[in-house]
Formats: sequence, C-alpha cells, structure tokens
Amino acid sequence: MAIGNSFDGRSSIIEVHMPNIAIIGSGAMGSAVAKRLIDHGATVLTNLDGRSERTIARAKAAGIVPVSRQELAKAELILSIVPPAEAINVAELVADISSMMPAPAPFIDLNAIAPKTMQALAARFEGSGVEVLDGAIIGGPPVPGKSGPTIYISGDSAERSRLLENYGLRVRRLDGPLGAASALKMCYAGINKGFIGLGTAMLLAASRSGAAESLKAELSESLPDFDRKLSKSIPDMYPKAYRWVAEMQEIADFLGEDDPAATIFRGMAGLFSKMADDVEDSRVLVGQLDEILAETGG
Amino acid sequence: MAIGNSFDGRSSIIEVHMPNIAIIGSGAMGSAVAKRLIDHGATVLTNLDGRSERTIARAKAAGIVPVSRQELAKAELILSIVPPAEAINVAELVADISSMMPAPAPFIDLNAIAPKTMQALAARFEGSGVEVLDGAIIGGPPVPGKSGPTIYISGDSAERSRLLENYGLRVRRLDGPLGAASALKMCYAGINKGFIGLGTAMLLAASRSGAAESLKAELSESLPDFDRKLSKSIPDMYPKAYRWVAEMQEIADFLGEDDPAATIFRGMAGLFSKMADDVEDSRVLVGQLDEILAETGG
Repeated sequence: MAIGNSFDGRSSIIEVHMPNIAIIGSGAMGSAVAKRLIDHGATVLTNLDGRSERTIARAKAAGIVPVSRQELAKAELILSIVPPAEAINVAELVADISSMMPAPAPFIDLNAIAPKTMQALAARFEGSGVEVLDGAIIGGPPVPGKSGPTIYISGDSAERSRLLENYGLRVRRLDGPLGAASALKMCYAGINKGFIGLGTAMLLAASRSGAAESLKAELSESLPDFDRKLSKSIPDMYPKAYRWVAEMQEIADFLGEDDPAATIFRGMAGLFSKMADDVEDSRVLVGQLDEILAETGG
Repeated sequence: MAIGNSFDGRSSIIEVHMPNIAIIGSGAMGSAVAKRLIDHGATVLTNLDGRSERTIARAKAAGIVPVSRQELAKAELILSIVPPAEAINVAELVADISSMMPAPAPFIDLNAIAPKTMQALAARFEGSGVEVLDGAIIGGPPVPGKSGPTIYISGDSAERSRLLENYGLRVRRLDGPLGAASALKMCYAGINKGFIGLGTAMLLAASRSGAAESLKAELSESLPDFDRKLSKSIPDMYPKAYRWVAEMQEIADFLGEDDPAATIFRGMAGLFSKMADDVEDSRVLVGQLDEILAETGG
C-alpha cells in the first residue's frame, strides 16, 4: 500500500502491487534486466550461492534481494538469463523447486539456445504444472534512458510476459510455437555475432600476412559502416568470447547437419574459443587486433 | 602518330603511344576493365576461342580486339582476370605462349587466390624470363563516371602497373612480397562476401523456422546498415554464387588448417555451392530470400 495523489488532487489510498520476479543468472545481462525491473517498482529475487564476490557485489548494487534456491519458487514469474550451456541445468533447478509448490510460477527461458534445445528444456517440465515460455533478448543489457533491449516471447497466449512490460522492459510477443523466439535469436545472433567473428578472423589473418594496414585503409574507404562496427564490436567481444562459443554451437545445431551453413558456425565456435583462451592467457591476439583497429586507415 | 593542337594553338605532330594490353578473361570484370582501358586510349587484346556467344558479344561491345592465343604474347602487359579455379590454367597458357618470345611481357594475376596459390602460380614461370606480379581487384567492375575498383599490386618494384594507371585504372602498389595483394583480397573478401553468406544462411533459416518477418523487422530497426546491405547484396550474389565457391575455398586455404576460422569458409563454400545449384535449377531458395527481403520490416 502507498499513499498517493489521485488525478483530481484529493489524497487517496491506492493499492500498489509489488510483484516478486525471480531472475536466475546475475551476469551483465541478468543484473541489468533486474535493475530495470527494480527501477520500475518490482522486487527481484535471486540466489547467489557459490557465486563470485564480484557477482554478489553487482547483484547487491542492482538492488536484487538474495534468497535461498527454494524461495525463488515464491516469485510470480521466474526468468533464466544465463550462458546457453547452463540453460538446461537452470531449467532442472526450476523444475525441482517448483515441484513443491501448489501453484508454481511460469518460467521464461531467455537464453540464446536453439529451438530444439528449448523444446528439450521444456520437456523437463512435463507434468509439473509449470508453464514454460520461450524467450530471447535482442540487444545489449538495459541502460538507463534507453528503451532496449527487446525481449521476444513466443507462445505466450496467457500474456505472462505482460508483467515484464509493466515494469519497464520492451516486450514483443511472437506468433508461433515454443521455439519461435529462440529461432529469431539464433538468426539474429548468426548475423550480428557472426559478423564480429568474420572481422576478427580476417583482421588476425591480415595481421599475420602483413596486410593489416592496407586492409584497414580499404575497409575505412569502401566499407565505412563495417569499419566502424568492427572497431567498436571487436573490443566489446573480448570478455564475452567464452560465452559465444556455446552460442555459436547452438546456432550450428539450429541450422542442422543438412545445412552447409552449420559448418560456418562450428568454425565460429572454434574461433571464439581461441579468442577466449587468448583473453585469459597471453592476450597476443587481443594485442594484434587492438593494433589494427588503432590504424587510422589513411 | 596523331595530329593535335599544342597548348599555344599551333598545329604540331605528337607521338601517341597506343599500348597493347592483353586481358585473359572476358567475364563481367574482365570486359569492364578492358572497356576502361580502351576508353582511355589503350588497345586491349583477348582470345575468344571456345567462348560463348554472349561472352564474344560482350567483348566486342567493349571494343576488345580478338586475337589468337599466341598473339596475346605480343602485348606489353598480360592480365589474368578469371574465376579463381582457372587462375593456374591461365598462368600455364601464358607461360606457354611467352616461352617463344625473346622479351616476354610482364604478367599480372588479378584473381582472388590465396598467397600460396599465387606463389605456386609464379613457380610455373621459373626460368621463363616472365616477370610475374601479384594483383587483386577490390570493388565491382569499373563503371563510367566512377573511379573504382582499386587494383592492388604487390612486388611491383619496376612499376609495370603504371601502364594501367595511365589508362584510367586506380592502382595502389603495396609494399611486401609476391602474395601481399592476394592476402589483402582474401581478408577483404572474407569480411565482405562472408557477410553476404551469413545473411543468406540466416535469412533462409529464419524462413524455414517461421521467424522471417520478425528477423527482418528487428534487423531494420537495430541494424539498419546491415539490413540495407543485405537487401542489395544478396540478390547481386545469385549469379555470382558459383564463382564464390572457389573463392571461399581459397580463403579457407589462406587461413590454413591451424586456424579454426578456415572451417568458417569451408562452410561458406558449401553454402554458395547450394545457392549456385538453386540459382541454376529450382530457384526455391532464391524465392525464399526474395520474399524476406521484400518485407517492409514494419
């Protein structure tokens, strides 16, 4: 309950419902989504057992309420925002804690997983009474003053995702079955992150074959949009490369064995894996990329 | 010799040298490069034995002079502008016809081949007295009124390519050994054509998973540069897909077995091969792509 002023200026008492939304995953995206919801009046719960000090600090800074795993089940809606390789484990946790609830909360998987992975994930909930929804986040983490990212949800006939919309997130409900939002995410990431992979691969190749300077000059002249995007996106990729490995593998699985393009994304997974190792270790490749990107292209 | 008017208005006789340049390859690029040179006063020779009526007509329309294979050797400069899979055969032809010349013309390979392929190609000329130069064309065929494409030449210490510059082409000489221009071309094409491959693969995947409309809308909103480029470049790719297969394989070879990114371009070769088959046959995939690209993205 809160005291407010009604439209005609008379003081009145109005009911304010403060929903509890559980978010599993307190990475850059999970904590920023939480902050957006909190800033719009929601209470966000998460579990921080076994997480790093940095993650705990970030969650607290966002105003997230740490609770036990079992208490997550008391939320009105449970979101999963984790690296794709962890999505199934999170679903199993949610199925487990929900099994003790008389009326379990709907569960939305927002991870970058293939539609088939989404269907396998949903299968873990069969007979549980949990409504499972397929979602995908397109765009970077929410930033104050900007309306993005867009959260796509498919198969949401009961409009469970309206709660997210009411608390500050941009939501688009898609027609189509469970998996349609995941398919969209795969296609979008295949173009967007795939492009960053192409740029990374070819700038490194140019660096080792002495063509770096002429490549940068030619790009800045004949493909200036690409040049600008690579200059920003490649450095942004370094800390995320480890996470993109599984996402590229999901895209390959999504395309399927019959599609020659699946091979493209198996190669992308290998490339981002090499980058992730370099970022954690010698940073030789990072140094080469930074050097090319610093070329003025004159 | 030609009669002209000198600067002060008095009639005079000046020497005009009309060089013969041989171009092997009368495709879209070869014939447009020829036309640019001819428009600037050069005489361009080619051999049309066994070529299609369409190619012969295009060459004649450009003003190219058809000659026998042996007569190509009488040019001052010989250029190879063919699909990458044909580059070695052309080099062998040139080595063959040059072997009978006392002072054979320099030979510039302008094809999209890997630096190692370029080195293997140059090896065919060992002991022949032919100066072999590594070149690469970046940009589409020359069009009247535009200065592009750019022709990169590496290892040209004797400035053999100045002849091309004098007759209307934009030339940039690169420092670095034989293969540096080819390396630049591989890196540039890997980004530019690789991007078109990514877009093709993901639009087709979106089409078959019912995500086409939402993907197009999201692209036009959050990646408008990409959306515009794909809308233009994908239809432009259809008739060239067959040629890009070998070019993608060259990029994979260029990257080498140790680079996981080589796998990306083996997948690209498979994708463009599938597209080339479709373009020649049922045009089912072309139809799907055209349908998505026609979406207004609203």
